[in-house]
Amino acid sequence: MSYSPQVISIDNLSEFCIGVLRACGVGEADSRVTAQILTTTDAWGVFTHGTKALRGYLRRLKGGGLAPRGVPSVVTEGRGWAVVDGDSSLGMVTSTYAMDVALAKARYTGLGYVGVRNSCHFGAAGAYAAQAARSGFIGLAMANDIPSVAAPGSRGAVTGSNPLAYAVPAGRHHPLMLDMSIATVAGGKVYAARERGEPIPATWLIDDQGRPTDDPQAYPEHSTLTPAAGHKGFGLALLIETLAGALTGAAMTARVGSWLAGDLSAPTHHGAAFLALDVAAIGPDLPARIESLIDEIHAAPRAAGVDRLYVPGEKEWENLDRSLRDGIALPPDVVASLGEAAAMGDMDLERYLKNP
Amino acid sequence: MSYSPQVISIDNLSEFCIGVLRACGVGEADSRVTAQILTTTDAWGVFTHGTKALRGYLRRLKGGGLAPRGVPSVVTEGRGWAVVDGDSSLGMVTSTYAMDVALAKARYTGLGYVGVRNSCHFGAAGAYAAQAARSGFIGLAMANDIPSVAAPGSRGAVTGSNPLAYAVPAGRHHPLMLDMSIATVAGGKVYAARERGEPIPATWLIDDQGRPTDDPQAYPEHSTLTPAAGHKGFGLALLIETLAGALTGAAMTARVGSWLAGDLSAPTHHGAAFLALDVAAIGPDLPARIESLIDEIHAAPRAAGVDRLYVPGEKEWENLDRSLRDGIALPPDVVASLGEAAAMGDMDLERYLKNP
Repeated sequence: MSYSPQVISIDNLSEFCIGVLRACGVGEADSRVTAQILTTTDAWGVFTHGTKALRGYLRRLKGGGLAPRGVPSVVTEGRGWAVVDGDSSLGMVTSTYAMDVALAKARYTGLGYVGVRNSCHFGAAGAYAAQAARSGFIGLAMANDIPSVAAPGSRGAVTGSNPLAYAVPAGRHHPLMLDMSIATVAGGKVYAARERGEPIPATWLIDDQGRPTDDPQAYPEHSTLTPAAGHKGFGLALLIETLAGALTGAAMTARVGSWLAGDLSAPTHHGAAFLALDVAAIGPDLPARIESLIDEIHAAPRAAGVDRLYVPGEKEWENLDRSLRDGIALPPDVVASLGEAAAMGDMDLERYLKNP
Repeated sequence: MSYSPQVISIDNLSEFCIGVLRACGVGEADSRVTAQILTTTDAWGVFTHGTKALRGYLRRLKGGGLAPRGVPSVVTEGRGWAVVDGDSSLGMVTSTYAMDVALAKARYTGLGYVGVRNSCHFGAAGAYAAQAARSGFIGLAMANDIPSVAAPGSRGAVTGSNPLAYAVPAGRHHPLMLDMSIATVAGGKVYAARERGEPIPATWLIDDQGRPTDDPQAYPEHSTLTPAAGHKGFGLALLIETLAGALTGAAMTARVGSWLAGDLSAPTHHGAAFLALDVAAIGPDLPARIESLIDEIHAAPRAAGVDRLYVPGEKEWENLDRSLRDGIALPPDVVASLGEAAAMGDMDLERYLKNP
């Protein structure tokens, strides 16, 4: 079966997601939360972390490694912080809950930290940063993962690609929003070059002797992603590991389970961390100041051939606005993945695609 | 007058610093704090941010842009946060005070944020992160600065090089400690290549049309540092600008004064931000878990020709241990700068160098 790009409304895509999650035993509210995050991620144009991942989550829900009726809860807490056990529920469910707790703490003390253990892949970190910004808070979100990125001088993977996201209210502009991994590039870019049969810049990968390589063919079996900006990306990876792993009781490095390829019956024990700062309390002028900063960047002199300077998140918000208006143009790989998800949930994907 | 490398004990270097600061009107306690930070930075081997900067601070103290008797104070606060006005005192004085306030907040709520305005260049961000780690806390420190780094697609500087540092208690190991700027490389590396007449990698600079260049000669008049890992470094710059500038009431981007080259009679209005997390409250296992993580990294397979894998801060702590034992081997440019500082403070540098 081959798939072509398909345009689908956010509402239809969301209903489809809720349907397959419900069919796999996830409760109504948790299905809605998960669908909202995955479809928003697609609407941002971040298709690697949107509904394409649903198939993997469903497999794990059926396998028992994710608990369809898991209930995340606070296990320890103080005035400004909490540690949440995700009870092996969907990473989106645990993370949304955890950021809500961080926001509640921040309302009381000005800032809140919530560390999470016993979570799973949480999709796009930016979703939880944006959750904070929607409430007028500065939000940060991060997570650890299985080793996939080298350290400077290593021969193989040492840290996870450990995403880090933030969002900042920006007055009349959409929030500033960055969602980055600490690797030079995502593995998906290497796969794309491999499929096209093209070499890659020698800065993206090291081979199995630890030497730079421009050959994408051996990835991921015999080559490893490099950390962004060398020791800087490696250093950020360990900061994220500190806040999302070491401080929370989550598994770390090789003891984290692969959410995609690992034993489907076992929890992955991912860690995550969420921070919120109360803008209204600490710096009520902040949105206006960020608005001006963005205006200043937009007006800055540009290199030849550059039409616009973008601030972090700007492209994603424009994609979201377009998706709300015109629907989401799902790439073929996402449609294919949704086809498998439909089969697992005994749903008719075509019905949702045909009636945008 | 030419200078050669000089070995000096930390104590002697510290006494010299205190002497010149006292001679320029700085109080006893503030002189001690400043000397401790600058000499520790030299002892770490980070000579660009240690006592070499003293000359510039003294000029500004004499010019009036830094207040020798300035007293930083909390201007607004909540349970877990505060905003500090530095009163144009030395950046080291304000920042040490601010991290102390953040630690006090963190003792109460589990984590503390302190934003700073009306500060100046604060030396090495790592000094304040280390201050937190010495007390058993996770510490983060960051600051904004005058524009010196491009944005992706820009033709000139858009953000500061905005340092970010963290330190994490690590059991029997020294703390994990990263101190990075968001530029691909520090300007000092470009100057060094220029002096050697060597080309640089085309990823370090853009020329005044916004194109990559491998020519260090036109820096900094007609070329600009690039952000580390492109949009990632740019995105981190704006996160730091948010926490250190927009949230604190500090000056931002072009409105920050140059601490080195600007009007010596005017405050620079730098911003900074400090975060502390209480390890004993949130995650008492953290030091042991970080200790194991470091052991694991040390044991990871290495690339051919690599003797050791270093974790962030490890080289600096080894340098500090060596400096404590053998004294600090000051490079000639630092000795020359201290010579000028000595003249401004009417001190005899030779006396301190001759009797290590």
